[in-house]
Amino acid sequence: MTAVNDDAFYMQRALNLAAKALGRTSPNPVVGAVIVKEGQIVGEGYHKKAGTPHAEIHALKQAGEKAKGATMYVTLEPCSHYGRTPPCAYALIEAGIKKVVMATLDPNPKVAGRGKKILEEAGVETVVGVLEEEAKRINEVFFKHITTGLPFVSLKYAMTMDGKIATLAGDSRWISGEESRSYVHKLRNIYDGIMVGINTVLKDDPMLNCRLDTEEKRDPVRIIIDGTLMLPLDSNIVKTAHQQRTIVITALSAEEEKCRELEKNNIEILKVAGEPDHLDLVEAFKMLLMEDICSILVEGGARLNASLLEHRLVDKVYCFLAPKITGGTGITPVEGKGVDFMKDAYTLKIAEYRRLDEDILVVAYTGW
Amino acid sequence: MTAVNDDAFYMQRALNLAAKALGRTSPNPVVGAVIVKEGQIVGEGYHKKAGTPHAEIHALKQAGEKAKGATMYVTLEPCSHYGRTPPCAYALIEAGIKKVVMATLDPNPKVAGRGKKILEEAGVETVVGVLEEEAKRINEVFFKHITTGLPFVSLKYAMTMDGKIATLAGDSRWISGEESRSYVHKLRNIYDGIMVGINTVLKDDPMLNCRLDTEEKRDPVRIIIDGTLMLPLDSNIVKTAHQQRTIVITALSAEEEKCRELEKNNIEILKVAGEPDHLDLVEAFKMLLMEDICSILVEGGARLNASLLEHRLVDKVYCFLAPKITGGTGITPVEGKGVDFMKDAYTLKIAEYRRLDEDILVVAYTGW
Repeated sequence: MTAVNDDAFYMQRALNLAAKALGRTSPNPVVGAVIVKEGQIVGEGYHKKAGTPHAEIHALKQAGEKAKGATMYVTLEPCSHYGRTPPCAYALIEAGIKKVVMATLDPNPKVAGRGKKILEEAGVETVVGVLEEEAKRINEVFFKHITTGLPFVSLKYAMTMDGKIATLAGDSRWISGEESRSYVHKLRNIYDGIMVGINTVLKDDPMLNCRLDTEEKRDPVRIIIDGTLMLPLDSNIVKTAHQQRTIVITALSAEEEKCRELEKNNIEILKVAGEPDHLDLVEAFKMLLMEDICSILVEGGARLNASLLEHRLVDKVYCFLAPKITGGTGITPVEGKGVDFMKDAYTLKIAEYRRLDEDILVVAYTGW
Repeated sequence: MTAVNDDAFYMQRALNLAAKALGRTSPNPVVGAVIVKEGQIVGEGYHKKAGTPHAEIHALKQAGEKAKGATMYVTLEPCSHYGRTPPCAYALIEAGIKKVVMATLDPNPKVAGRGKKILEEAGVETVVGVLEEEAKRINEVFFKHITTGLPFVSLKYAMTMDGKIATLAGDSRWISGEESRSYVHKLRNIYDGIMVGINTVLKDDPMLNCRLDTEEKRDPVRIIIDGTLMLPLDSNIVKTAHQQRTIVITALSAEEEKCRELEKNNIEILKVAGEPDHLDLVEAFKMLLMEDICSILVEGGARLNASLLEHRLVDKVYCFLAPKITGGTGITPVEGKGVDFMKDAYTLKIAEYRRLDEDILVVAYTGW
């Protein structure tokens, strides 16, 4: 193996460690760190949760004395500021780390490069850019909210081969196959929030929880866009609000009594500006970020998807394409007012496509 | 290499030869043949056009005396009947071929196994089933029309990621990228016929020719479904009908005078039963097959696609998925009356998916 391949190998290991905490660290990034000495991994770790030690600290602890003169591979530039934990850059210096290989610098323009500079000034050799793309991708949520003040937003829908997410009669069970549906639960497990419009609640009475067969799963925060507070008190959402955090976004004009009734049922009410059918979603999303909801998986329907696209709030699209054809003028994934000319369509970039049993998952980014 | 791998190797070579004539042999299948003696290819060939020598004959001619005691790999069972050419089975025996490896038997129930039997009775060793799936796939057109009396029919459409083939205003230029559009011309080059509804002609005034940058290209026969003969005399289709065969399928009630006008412009008129807006498409397709149009690429729109699906006339779907979102209630690939419940949707099987530059092509079969 050449040195370059070694670097990629250890960084990939650090990325794999980081990935273990996806959806668990908000508002922090996921970070993995590996300490290597004389071709041996002597310490490794990852950041598990905001307020707990950073990846570097876990790795240093495991390495102990062996950290002296070793190289650290870390997926993000070590921090340089006193936050809930002391700055990692100093801990690395103190432990005698000789060289730090970072996948990418911190995206926060206020601190980017500072950790690196501190290390260099203490005589630690630094390298930046090993598996940088992968490191940015794994932290797409963190990079988005740190640089924009908005959460990372993904649309998810299952579509037939003739472009329908439901028949005209409104039926949509099921479009995609079991493997696709199970994949959605994996997504729910790593997104901080899951969002639907009130019409989806009224039509499907969904649970919007994470039904994975693993102990480490956790439910996303449910977020319902409901301008006139039509959410029924006997809906599954309200009935389970004591066990899964639920936020209803509504208009300033929302009826006080209904608010109190919902709040009594453990529903949090978030009032934002705008008309009940045209809420200020940008304001809503900023407020959700302040609640440490850094990533949101939007599960339809067509009007909410359109509205989010019009507000340029969408970062990513998961399109599950199922080999079915319904015919008719059913419901398509994005409606709203739409564009007249194809040249004015929103353009995305396909990043990934893969087979999920009978279906195909296509993942695309808006990249605006 | 083991013997089995040798078999697959030579058969793949024979399949590659067969593929050279895709779209050129109707109503015959494409066939490739390779003669191997002592580990050397001593002759090979493929069927180029109906009425000309079969693949086996080309290969025997090339092998000459070396055919004696050799093994022939052929993608389809050698024929046993006196058609436009004498039966190949006898030619093989005469040439002294010792062993014949066939990918698959003839799908025609009237002759299947007869070529093999003739060979065996003459003491020639036979093997069937090497790369059989591939051989059936490459001759999916032949297998379809021989066993059903209907042409092989493929729908082709380009769809946005929100399921539109056109905006509500009717704009569809362009949905897919250059590579996808160039792929469509490759398809046009191998399908015997290309079909559209009259509305597509009125809206887009298309040429429906094959615009490939190669000398071997040829245009498919244009087939227009036009129940009331609205095809304009000044359309691109009519203006170029002297250089590209064009068939208009219309109702028995179609106006005689308009028929004569179109015929004067080299348009062929095919009258079928049914109402002008509900023509008997099964009859039409049977008649097209009698014209040696064994495969038809249907390029929209939504109503024609629906109608063909309702008649169970569709075999294959080419869906070009483009990373664009138009929003709005545009036109979807298949409309017509449609189903109310997702469980009643037509189900397909995805056979292939691949990236074409920015787009993804998904190929699926109905398999009914």
